[in-house]
Amino acid sequence: MNYRMLIQYDGTRYNGWQRQQSTDMTIQGKIESVLSKMTGKPVEIHGAGRTDAGVHALGQVANVHLDTSMPPAEILRYLNRWLPEDIGILSVEEAPPRFHSRLNAVSKRYDYRIATNPALHVFDRKFMYPFTEPLNVPAMQEAASFLTGEHDFQGFCARKMKKSTVRRLDSVTFAEEPGELCISYRGNGFLYYMVRIMTGTLIEIGTGQRTPESIPSVFETKLREQAGFTAPARGLTLVNIDYQEETSWTLNE
Amino acid sequence: MNYRMLIQYDGTRYNGWQRQQSTDMTIQGKIESVLSKMTGKPVEIHGAGRTDAGVHALGQVANVHLDTSMPPAEILRYLNRWLPEDIGILSVEEAPPRFHSRLNAVSKRYDYRIATNPALHVFDRKFMYPFTEPLNVPAMQEAASFLTGEHDFQGFCARKMKKSTVRRLDSVTFAEEPGELCISYRGNGFLYYMVRIMTGTLIEIGTGQRTPESIPSVFETKLREQAGFTAPARGLTLVNIDYQEETSWTLNE
Repeated sequence: MNYRMLIQYDGTRYNGWQRQQSTDMTIQGKIESVLSKMTGKPVEIHGAGRTDAGVHALGQVANVHLDTSMPPAEILRYLNRWLPEDIGILSVEEAPPRFHSRLNAVSKRYDYRIATNPALHVFDRKFMYPFTEPLNVPAMQEAASFLTGEHDFQGFCARKMKKSTVRRLDSVTFAEEPGELCISYRGNGFLYYMVRIMTGTLIEIGTGQRTPESIPSVFETKLREQAGFTAPARGLTLVNIDYQEETSWTLNE
Repeated sequence: MNYRMLIQYDGTRYNGWQRQQSTDMTIQGKIESVLSKMTGKPVEIHGAGRTDAGVHALGQVANVHLDTSMPPAEILRYLNRWLPEDIGILSVEEAPPRFHSRLNAVSKRYDYRIATNPALHVFDRKFMYPFTEPLNVPAMQEAASFLTGEHDFQGFCARKMKKSTVRRLDSVTFAEEPGELCISYRGNGFLYYMVRIMTGTLIEIGTGQRTPESIPSVFETKLREQAGFTAPARGLTLVNIDYQEETSWTLNE
Protein backbone atom coordinates (compact mmCIF):
# COMPACT_ATOMS: atom_id res chain seq x y z
CA MET A 1 0.00 0.00 0.00
CA ASN A 2 1.18 3.51 -0.87
CA TYR A 3 0.84 6.14 1.88
CA ARG A 4 1.03 9.90 1.67
CA MET A 5 2.35 11.85 4.67
CA LEU A 6 2.19 15.54 5.54
CA ILE A 7 5.23 16.53 7.61
CA GLN A 8 6.49 19.57 9.50
CA TYR A 9 9.91 20.06 11.03
CA ASP A 10 12.22 22.52 12.70
CA GLY A 11 15.31 21.91 10.55
CA THR A 12 17.77 23.65 12.89
CA ARG A 13 19.49 20.46 14.09
CA TYR A 14 19.41 18.55 10.81
CA ASN A 15 21.63 18.09 7.78
CA GLY A 16 18.60 18.58 5.57
CA TRP A 17 15.90 16.28 4.27
CA GLN A 18 17.90 13.79 2.23
CA ARG A 19 19.34 10.62 3.78
CA GLN A 20 23.15 10.54 3.85
CA GLN A 21 25.61 7.81 4.66
CA SER A 22 27.80 10.11 6.74
CA THR A 23 25.18 11.21 9.28
CA ASP A 24 21.94 10.00 10.81
CA MET A 25 20.78 13.60 11.34
CA THR A 26 18.53 13.93 8.31
CA ILE A 27 14.74 14.18 8.32
CA GLN A 28 14.34 11.39 5.75
CA GLY A 29 16.69 9.16 7.74
CA LYS A 30 14.80 9.74 11.02
CA ILE A 31 11.40 8.94 9.49
CA GLU A 32 12.70 5.89 7.59
CA SER A 33 14.29 4.51 10.71
CA VAL A 34 11.01 4.69 12.66
CA LEU A 35 9.08 3.08 9.78
CA SER A 36 11.72 0.32 9.49
CA LYS A 37 11.36 -0.38 13.20
CA MET A 38 7.57 -0.49 12.77
CA THR A 39 7.57 -2.89 9.79
CA GLY A 40 10.75 -4.82 10.52
CA LYS A 41 11.98 -4.14 6.98
CA PRO A 42 14.11 -1.51 5.23
CA VAL A 43 11.90 1.40 4.11
CA GLU A 44 12.47 4.17 1.57
CA ILE A 45 10.36 7.32 1.62
CA HIS A 46 10.13 9.90 -1.19
CA GLY A 47 9.98 13.55 -0.21
CA ALA A 48 8.61 16.27 -2.48
CA GLY A 49 11.19 18.93 -1.56
CA ARG A 50 14.82 18.18 -0.70
CA THR A 51 15.29 20.89 1.89
CA ASP A 52 18.90 21.84 2.73
CA ALA A 53 20.60 21.68 6.10
CA GLY A 54 18.92 24.07 8.55
CA VAL A 55 15.81 24.64 6.41
CA HIS A 56 12.36 24.10 7.96
CA ALA A 57 9.06 22.72 6.67
CA LEU A 58 5.45 23.45 7.50
CA GLY A 59 4.02 21.21 4.78
CA GLN A 60 6.53 18.74 3.35
CA VAL A 61 4.86 15.82 1.55
CA ALA A 62 6.32 12.33 1.27
CA ASN A 63 5.04 8.97 0.07
CA VAL A 64 6.07 5.49 1.07
CA HIS A 65 5.14 1.96 0.03
CA LEU A 66 4.63 -0.16 3.14
CA ASP A 67 3.89 -3.81 3.57
CA THR A 68 1.66 -3.50 6.63
CA SER A 69 -1.94 -4.02 7.64
CA MET A 70 -1.85 -1.13 10.12
CA PRO A 71 -4.50 1.51 9.47
CA PRO A 72 -3.13 5.01 8.59
CA ALA A 73 -4.22 6.48 11.95
CA GLU A 74 -2.12 3.89 13.75
CA ILE A 75 0.93 4.55 11.54
CA LEU A 76 0.49 8.26 12.34
CA ARG A 77 0.45 7.58 16.09
CA TYR A 78 3.45 5.27 15.88
CA LEU A 79 5.51 7.84 13.95
CA ASN A 80 4.73 10.71 16.32
CA ARG A 81 5.42 8.55 19.31
CA TRP A 82 8.95 7.63 18.17
CA LEU A 83 10.10 10.66 16.16
CA PRO A 84 12.08 13.44 17.89
CA GLU A 85 9.99 16.41 19.01
CA ASP A 86 11.28 18.68 16.22
CA ILE A 87 9.66 16.47 13.55
CA GLY A 88 5.85 16.19 13.47
CA ILE A 89 3.69 14.09 11.16
CA LEU A 90 0.42 15.94 10.55
CA SER A 91 -1.36 13.20 8.61
CA VAL A 92 -0.94 9.79 7.01
CA GLU A 93 -3.42 8.67 4.36
CA GLU A 94 -3.70 5.97 1.74
CA ALA A 95 -2.65 7.13 -1.73
CA PRO A 96 -3.14 5.69 -5.22
CA PRO A 97 -0.42 3.16 -6.09
CA ARG A 98 1.29 5.45 -8.59
CA PHE A 99 1.23 8.62 -6.48
CA HIS A 100 4.77 10.02 -6.13
CA SER A 101 5.21 13.06 -3.90
CA ARG A 102 7.91 14.71 -6.01
CA LEU A 103 7.06 13.65 -9.55
CA ASN A 104 3.37 14.53 -9.19
CA ALA A 105 3.94 17.89 -7.49
CA VAL A 106 2.60 20.77 -9.57
CA SER A 107 4.08 23.64 -7.56
CA LYS A 108 5.78 24.41 -4.27
CA ARG A 109 5.80 27.40 -1.98
CA TYR A 110 8.82 28.48 0.02
CA ASP A 111 8.76 31.41 2.47
CA TYR A 112 11.86 33.34 3.45
CA ARG A 113 11.37 35.26 6.71
CA ILE A 114 13.59 38.25 7.48
CA ALA A 115 13.50 39.64 11.04
CA THR A 116 13.82 43.38 10.44
CA ASN A 117 13.37 43.95 14.19
CA PRO A 118 14.66 40.81 15.94
CA ALA A 119 13.60 42.13 19.38
CA LEU A 120 9.97 41.48 18.32
CA HIS A 121 10.74 37.90 17.30
CA VAL A 122 12.34 36.27 20.32
CA PHE A 123 10.01 33.27 20.06
CA ASP A 124 10.35 32.51 16.36
CA ARG A 125 13.89 33.80 15.89
CA LYS A 126 15.19 30.38 14.81
CA PHE A 127 12.96 30.46 11.74
CA MET A 128 14.00 33.95 10.61
CA TYR A 129 17.16 35.67 9.36
CA PRO A 130 17.92 38.79 11.43
CA PHE A 131 18.69 41.71 9.11
CA THR A 132 18.30 45.22 10.51
CA GLU A 133 19.56 47.44 7.68
CA PRO A 134 16.66 49.34 6.06
CA LEU A 135 15.27 47.57 2.97
CA ASN A 136 13.70 49.31 -0.01
CA VAL A 137 10.78 46.95 -0.57
CA PRO A 138 9.44 48.63 -3.75
CA ALA A 139 12.86 48.11 -5.39
CA MET A 140 12.80 44.45 -4.28
CA GLN A 141 9.30 44.10 -5.76
CA GLU A 142 10.49 45.56 -9.05
CA ALA A 143 13.36 43.05 -9.09
CA ALA A 144 10.93 40.23 -8.30
CA SER A 145 9.00 41.04 -11.47
CA PHE A 146 12.18 40.22 -13.44
CA LEU A 147 12.47 36.90 -11.59
CA THR A 148 9.00 35.54 -12.28
CA GLY A 149 8.23 33.58 -15.42
CA GLU A 150 10.09 30.74 -17.11
CA HIS A 151 13.87 31.20 -17.10
CA ASP A 152 17.12 29.30 -17.00
CA PHE A 153 17.99 29.70 -13.31
CA GLN A 154 21.55 28.26 -13.55
CA GLY A 155 22.97 31.61 -12.33
CA PHE A 156 20.82 31.28 -9.17
CA CYS A 157 22.05 27.75 -8.49
CA ALA A 158 25.03 26.83 -6.30
CA ARG A 159 25.99 23.81 -8.47
CA LYS A 160 26.70 23.26 -12.14
CA MET A 161 23.79 21.10 -13.29
CA LYS A 162 23.79 18.56 -16.12
CA LYS A 163 20.01 18.38 -16.36
CA SER A 164 17.87 21.33 -17.43
CA THR A 165 17.97 24.35 -15.12
CA VAL A 166 14.89 25.92 -16.68
CA ARG A 167 12.17 26.49 -14.09
CA ARG A 168 8.92 28.44 -13.92
CA LEU A 169 8.62 30.88 -11.03
CA ASP A 170 4.92 31.72 -10.72
CA SER A 171 5.04 34.44 -8.11
CA VAL A 172 7.21 36.29 -5.61
CA THR A 173 5.17 38.14 -2.99
CA PHE A 174 6.18 40.33 -0.08
CA ALA A 175 4.36 40.54 3.26
CA GLU A 176 5.38 43.13 5.83
CA GLU A 177 4.49 42.37 9.46
CA PRO A 178 5.72 44.16 12.59
CA GLY A 179 9.48 43.56 12.64
CA GLU A 180 9.30 41.11 9.72
CA LEU A 181 9.52 40.97 5.94
CA CYS A 182 8.38 37.65 4.50
CA ILE A 183 9.11 36.78 0.85
CA SER A 184 7.00 33.94 -0.61
CA TYR A 185 8.13 32.09 -3.73
CA ARG A 186 5.83 29.80 -5.69
CA GLY A 187 7.05 27.80 -8.66
CA ASN A 188 7.19 24.43 -10.36
CA GLY A 189 10.64 23.54 -9.06
CA PHE A 190 13.64 25.01 -7.30
CA LEU A 191 17.34 24.30 -7.89
CA TYR A 192 19.99 23.78 -5.22
CA TYR A 193 20.14 26.97 -3.04
CA MET A 194 17.96 28.79 -5.59
CA VAL A 195 15.52 30.39 -3.11
CA ARG A 196 18.37 31.46 -0.83
CA ILE A 197 20.39 33.00 -3.69
CA MET A 198 17.30 34.81 -5.02
CA THR A 199 16.67 36.11 -1.49
CA GLY A 200 20.27 37.26 -1.04
CA THR A 201 20.06 39.03 -4.40
CA LEU A 202 16.78 40.72 -3.43
CA ILE A 203 18.29 41.83 -0.10
CA GLU A 204 21.26 43.40 -1.93
CA ILE A 205 18.76 45.24 -4.13
CA GLY A 206 16.84 46.31 -1.00
CA THR A 207 19.96 47.87 0.51
CA GLY A 208 20.88 49.58 -2.76
CA GLN A 209 24.05 47.56 -3.39
CA ARG A 210 22.64 46.49 -6.75
CA THR A 211 19.72 47.49 -9.00
CA PRO A 212 16.59 45.57 -10.00
CA GLU A 213 17.90 45.73 -13.58
CA SER A 214 20.84 43.50 -12.60
CA ILE A 215 18.53 40.45 -12.57
CA PRO A 216 18.30 39.89 -16.36
CA SER A 217 22.10 39.70 -16.64
CA VAL A 218 22.11 36.71 -14.25
CA PHE A 219 19.73 34.93 -16.64
CA GLU A 220 21.81 35.94 -19.67
CA THR A 221 25.26 35.02 -18.34
CA LYS A 222 24.04 32.05 -16.24
CA LEU A 223 26.91 32.88 -13.88
CA ARG A 224 26.49 32.37 -10.14
CA GLU A 225 28.85 35.26 -9.38
CA GLN A 226 26.46 37.68 -11.14
CA ALA A 227 23.83 37.01 -8.44
CA GLY A 228 23.84 38.04 -4.77
CA PHE A 229 24.87 36.25 -1.59
CA THR A 230 23.26 33.05 -0.32
CA ALA A 231 20.83 34.03 2.45
CA PRO A 232 21.19 31.76 5.53
CA ALA A 233 19.17 28.54 5.76
CA ARG A 234 17.49 29.44 9.07
CA GLY A 235 15.08 31.92 7.41
CA LEU A 236 13.75 29.43 4.86
CA THR A 237 10.62 27.26 5.24
CA LEU A 238 8.98 24.90 2.75
CA VAL A 239 5.35 25.94 3.24
CA ASN A 240 3.39 23.59 1.00
CA ILE A 241 3.30 21.42 -2.08
CA ASP A 242 0.43 21.60 -4.55
CA TYR A 243 -0.84 18.62 -6.48
CA GLN A 244 -3.42 18.37 -9.24
CA GLU A 245 -6.95 18.60 -7.96
CA GLU A 246 -7.44 15.97 -5.29
CA THR A 247 -10.19 14.20 -7.25
CA SER A 248 -7.67 12.79 -9.72
CA TRP A 249 -5.86 11.13 -6.83
CA THR A 250 -8.74 9.52 -5.00
CA LEU A 251 -8.60 5.80 -4.52
CA ASN A 252 -11.74 5.39 -6.63
CA GLU A 253 -10.33 7.12 -9.71
CA MET B 1 15.17 59.71 35.29
CA ASN B 2 12.95 56.65 35.82
CA TYR B 3 12.37 54.45 32.76
CA ARG B 4 9.78 51.75 32.18
CA MET B 5 10.64 48.83 29.91
CA LEU B 6 8.47 46.18 28.26
CA ILE B 7 10.44 42.95 27.84
CA GLN B 8 9.97 39.55 26.21
CA TYR B 9 12.20 36.53 26.55
CA ASP B 10 12.57 32.88 25.75
CA GLY B 11 13.55 31.66 29.24
CA THR B 12 14.85 28.25 28.13
CA ARG B 13 18.55 29.01 28.70
CA TYR B 14 18.15 31.13 31.83
CA ASN B 15 18.13 30.61 35.58
CA GLY B 16 15.08 32.85 35.81
CA TRP B 17 14.56 36.58 36.04
CA GLN B 18 16.32 37.40 39.30
CA ARG B 19 20.03 38.26 39.42
CA GLN B 20 22.13 35.69 41.30
CA GLN B 21 25.71 35.73 42.48
CA SER B 22 26.34 32.16 41.33
CA THR B 23 25.46 32.62 37.64
CA ASP B 24 25.34 35.33 35.01
CA MET B 25 22.53 33.50 33.17
CA THR B 26 19.60 35.51 34.50
CA ILE B 27 17.41 37.93 32.54
CA GLN B 28 17.83 40.71 35.13
CA GLY B 29 21.60 40.19 35.12
CA LYS B 30 21.86 40.35 31.32
CA ILE B 31 19.84 43.58 31.07
CA GLU B 32 21.65 45.23 34.00
CA SER B 33 25.01 44.39 32.50
CA VAL B 34 24.12 46.07 29.16
CA LEU B 35 22.76 49.15 30.98
CA SER B 36 25.90 49.32 33.15
CA LYS B 37 28.05 49.22 30.05
CA MET B 38 25.91 51.99 28.53
CA THR B 39 26.06 54.32 31.54
CA GLY B 40 29.45 53.31 32.96
CA LYS B 41 27.84 52.80 36.39
CA PRO B 42 26.29 49.91 38.33
CA VAL B 43 22.58 49.66 37.50
CA GLU B 44 19.70 47.91 39.29
CA ILE B 45 16.45 47.16 37.48
CA HIS B 46 13.16 46.17 39.13
CA GLY B 47 11.06 43.51 37.42
CA ALA B 48 7.33 43.08 38.02
CA GLY B 49 7.35 39.28 37.96
CA ARG B 50 10.22 37.13 39.23
CA THR B 51 9.90 34.34 36.69
CA ASP B 52 11.57 31.02 37.59
CA ALA B 53 14.28 29.21 35.65
CA GLY B 54 12.98 28.15 32.23
CA VAL B 55 9.86 30.36 32.33
CA HIS B 56 9.20 32.74 29.41
CA ALA B 57 7.75 36.25 29.15
CA LEU B 58 5.75 38.03 26.48
CA GLY B 59 5.16 41.17 28.55
CA GLN B 60 7.48 41.49 31.54
CA VAL B 61 7.68 45.07 32.87
CA ALA B 62 10.71 46.55 34.63
CA ASN B 63 11.72 50.01 35.74
CA VAL B 64 15.15 51.49 36.20
CA HIS B 65 16.56 54.81 37.40
CA LEU B 66 19.30 55.91 35.03
CA ASP B 67 21.62 58.88 35.13
CA THR B 68 21.77 59.49 31.37
CA SER B 69 20.71 62.08 28.83
CA MET B 70 20.05 59.46 26.14
CA PRO B 71 16.49 59.58 24.77
CA PRO B 72 14.38 56.44 25.42
CA ALA B 73 14.48 55.41 21.73
CA GLU B 74 18.26 55.36 21.85
CA ILE B 75 18.32 53.31 25.08
CA LEU B 76 15.95 50.86 23.37
CA ARG B 77 18.27 50.51 20.35
CA TYR B 78 21.34 50.12 22.57
CA LEU B 79 19.70 47.36 24.63
CA ASN B 80 18.50 45.37 21.62
CA ARG B 81 21.87 45.72 19.94
CA TRP B 82 23.78 44.20 22.88
CA LEU B 83 21.32 41.77 24.46
CA PRO B 84 21.31 38.10 23.38
CA GLU B 85 18.74 37.21 20.73
CA ASP B 86 16.48 35.39 23.21
CA ILE B 87 15.79 38.63 25.11
CA GLY B 88 13.92 41.44 23.33
CA ILE B 89 13.07 44.90 24.65
CA LEU B 90 9.76 46.00 23.12
CA SER B 91 9.72 49.55 24.46
CA VAL B 92 11.48 51.99 26.77
CA GLU B 93 9.61 55.05 27.99
CA GLU B 94 10.00 57.71 30.64
CA ALA B 95 8.01 56.96 33.81
CA PRO B 96 7.00 59.08 36.83
CA PRO B 97 9.76 59.16 39.47
CA ARG B 98 7.82 56.98 41.92
CA PHE B 99 6.69 54.35 39.40
CA HIS B 100 7.76 50.86 40.56
CA SER B 101 7.04 47.96 38.23
CA ARG B 102 6.28 45.44 40.97
CA LEU B 103 4.78 47.55 43.75
CA ASN B 104 2.40 49.39 41.41
CA ALA B 105 1.25 46.30 39.52
CA VAL B 106 -2.48 45.68 39.92
CA SER B 107 -2.65 42.25 38.34
CA LYS B 108 -0.63 39.79 36.28
CA ARG B 109 -1.50 37.19 33.71
CA TYR B 110 0.36 33.91 33.28
CA ASP B 111 -0.46 31.37 30.56
CA TYR B 112 0.34 27.69 30.87
CA ARG B 113 0.40 25.96 27.47
CA ILE B 114 -0.09 22.20 27.27
CA ALA B 115 0.71 20.48 23.94
CA THR B 116 -2.00 17.82 23.77
CA ASN B 117 -0.74 16.88 20.28
CA PRO B 118 2.96 17.79 20.16
CA ALA B 119 3.23 16.82 16.45
CA LEU B 120 1.22 19.99 15.68
CA HIS B 121 3.56 22.18 17.72
CA VAL B 122 7.02 21.53 16.35
CA PHE B 123 7.74 25.28 16.07
CA ASP B 124 6.58 26.41 19.53
CA ARG B 125 7.33 23.19 21.40
CA LYS B 126 9.83 24.91 23.71
CA PHE B 127 7.05 27.07 25.14
CA MET B 128 4.65 24.19 25.83
CA TYR B 129 4.51 21.13 28.06
CA PRO B 130 3.82 17.98 26.01
CA PHE B 131 1.07 15.95 27.68
CA THR B 132 -0.84 13.45 25.55
CA GLU B 133 -3.12 11.68 28.04
CA PRO B 134 -6.77 12.71 27.51
CA LEU B 135 -7.84 15.60 29.79
CA ASN B 136 -11.37 16.13 31.11
CA VAL B 137 -11.56 19.90 30.63
CA PRO B 138 -15.02 20.37 32.25
CA ALA B 139 -13.67 18.76 35.46
CA MET B 140 -10.65 21.08 35.31
CA GLN B 141 -12.99 24.06 34.87
CA GLU B 142 -15.01 22.97 37.89
CA ALA B 143 -11.79 22.75 39.91
CA ALA B 144 -10.75 26.19 38.67
CA SER B 145 -13.91 27.68 40.16
CA PHE B 146 -12.66 26.52 43.58
CA LEU B 147 -9.29 28.20 42.93
CA THR B 148 -10.57 31.67 42.07
CA GLY B 149 -11.20 34.28 44.75
CA GLU B 150 -9.11 35.35 47.74
CA HIS B 151 -7.42 32.46 49.52
CA ASP B 152 -4.34 31.52 51.49
CA PHE B 153 -2.31 29.81 48.74
CA GLN B 154 0.43 28.42 51.04
CA GLY B 155 -0.51 24.87 49.99
CA PHE B 156 0.17 25.85 46.36
CA CYS B 157 3.59 27.30 47.20
CA ALA B 158 6.88 25.41 47.09
CA ARG B 159 8.36 27.35 50.04
CA LYS B 160 7.26 28.07 53.59
CA MET B 161 6.65 31.81 53.57
CA LYS B 162 6.99 34.20 56.50
CA LYS B 163 4.98 36.97 54.85
CA SER B 164 1.30 36.64 54.01
CA THR B 165 0.44 33.96 51.47
CA VAL B 166 -3.05 35.33 50.87
CA ARG B 167 -3.59 36.21 47.20
CA ARG B 168 -6.55 37.04 44.99
CA LEU B 169 -6.93 34.89 41.88
CA ASP B 170 -9.32 36.78 39.59
CA SER B 171 -9.82 34.20 36.87
CA VAL B 172 -8.68 30.89 35.45
CA THR B 173 -9.72 30.40 31.82
CA PHE B 174 -9.22 27.55 29.38
CA ALA B 175 -8.65 27.88 25.63
CA GLU B 176 -8.61 24.80 23.42
CA GLU B 177 -6.74 25.12 20.12
CA PRO B 178 -5.75 22.32 17.73
CA GLY B 179 -3.32 20.16 19.72
CA GLU B 180 -3.19 22.65 22.60
CA LEU B 181 -4.88 23.44 25.90
CA CYS B 182 -3.92 26.85 27.27
CA ILE B 183 -4.77 27.78 30.89
CA SER B 184 -4.67 31.52 31.69
CA TYR B 185 -4.37 32.73 35.26
CA ARG B 186 -4.99 36.34 36.27
CA GLY B 187 -4.48 37.55 39.82
CA ASN B 188 -2.94 40.20 42.05
CA GLY B 189 0.13 38.15 42.88
CA PHE B 190 1.61 34.69 42.61
CA LEU B 191 3.77 32.77 45.10
CA TYR B 192 6.86 30.72 44.33
CA TYR B 193 5.85 27.92 41.86
CA MET B 194 2.16 28.72 42.49
CA VAL B 195 1.03 28.71 38.83
CA ARG B 196 2.94 25.52 38.10
CA ILE B 197 1.52 23.71 41.17
CA MET B 198 -2.04 24.86 40.34
CA THR B 199 -1.48 23.59 36.78
CA GLY B 200 -0.13 20.24 37.95
CA THR B 201 -3.15 19.90 40.26
CA LEU B 202 -5.56 20.75 37.42
CA ILE B 203 -3.84 18.21 35.15
CA GLU B 204 -4.26 15.51 37.82
CA ILE B 205 -7.94 16.44 38.00
CA GLY B 206 -8.13 16.28 34.18
CA THR B 207 -6.80 12.73 34.15
CA GLY B 208 -9.13 11.63 36.97
CA GLN B 209 -6.36 11.03 39.53
CA ARG B 210 -8.06 13.51 41.85
CA THR B 211 -11.41 15.30 42.05
CA PRO B 212 -12.27 19.01 41.74
CA GLU B 213 -13.47 18.81 45.36
CA SER B 214 -9.90 18.12 46.50
CA ILE B 215 -9.02 21.80 46.00
CA PRO B 216 -10.65 23.22 49.17
CA SER B 217 -8.66 20.81 51.36
CA VAL B 218 -5.41 22.35 50.03
CA PHE B 219 -6.64 25.74 51.23
CA GLU B 220 -7.76 24.31 54.60
CA THR B 221 -4.64 22.28 55.42
CA LYS B 222 -2.20 24.70 53.70
CA LEU B 223 -0.07 21.64 52.98
CA ARG B 224 1.94 21.44 49.75
CA GLU B 225 1.58 17.64 49.69
CA GLN B 226 -2.21 17.99 49.39
CA ALA B 227 -1.78 19.64 45.97
CA GLY B 228 -0.65 18.09 42.69
CA PHE B 229 2.72 17.92 40.96
CA THR B 230 4.68 20.94 39.80
CA ALA B 231 4.13 21.30 36.05
CA PRO B 232 7.41 21.93 34.16
CA ALA B 233 8.66 25.50 33.68
CA ARG B 234 8.82 25.29 29.87
CA GLY B 235 5.01 25.58 29.49
CA LEU B 236 4.73 28.80 31.51
CA THR B 237 4.75 32.35 30.11
CA LEU B 238 4.26 35.69 31.89
CA VAL B 239 1.87 37.33 29.44
CA ASN B 240 1.31 40.80 30.85
CA ILE B 241 1.21 43.07 33.87
CA ASP B 242 -1.66 45.47 34.45
CA TYR B 243 -1.26 48.86 36.11
CA GLN B 244 -3.81 51.43 37.19
CA GLU B 245 -5.15 53.48 34.31
CA GLU B 246 -2.25 55.01 32.46
CA THR B 247 -3.46 58.58 33.08
CA SER B 248 -2.45 58.39 36.73
CA TRP B 249 1.09 57.67 35.64
CA THR B 250 1.62 60.34 33.03
CA LEU B 251 4.54 62.67 33.56
CA ASN B 252 2.18 65.65 33.78
CA GLU B 253 0.11 64.27 36.65
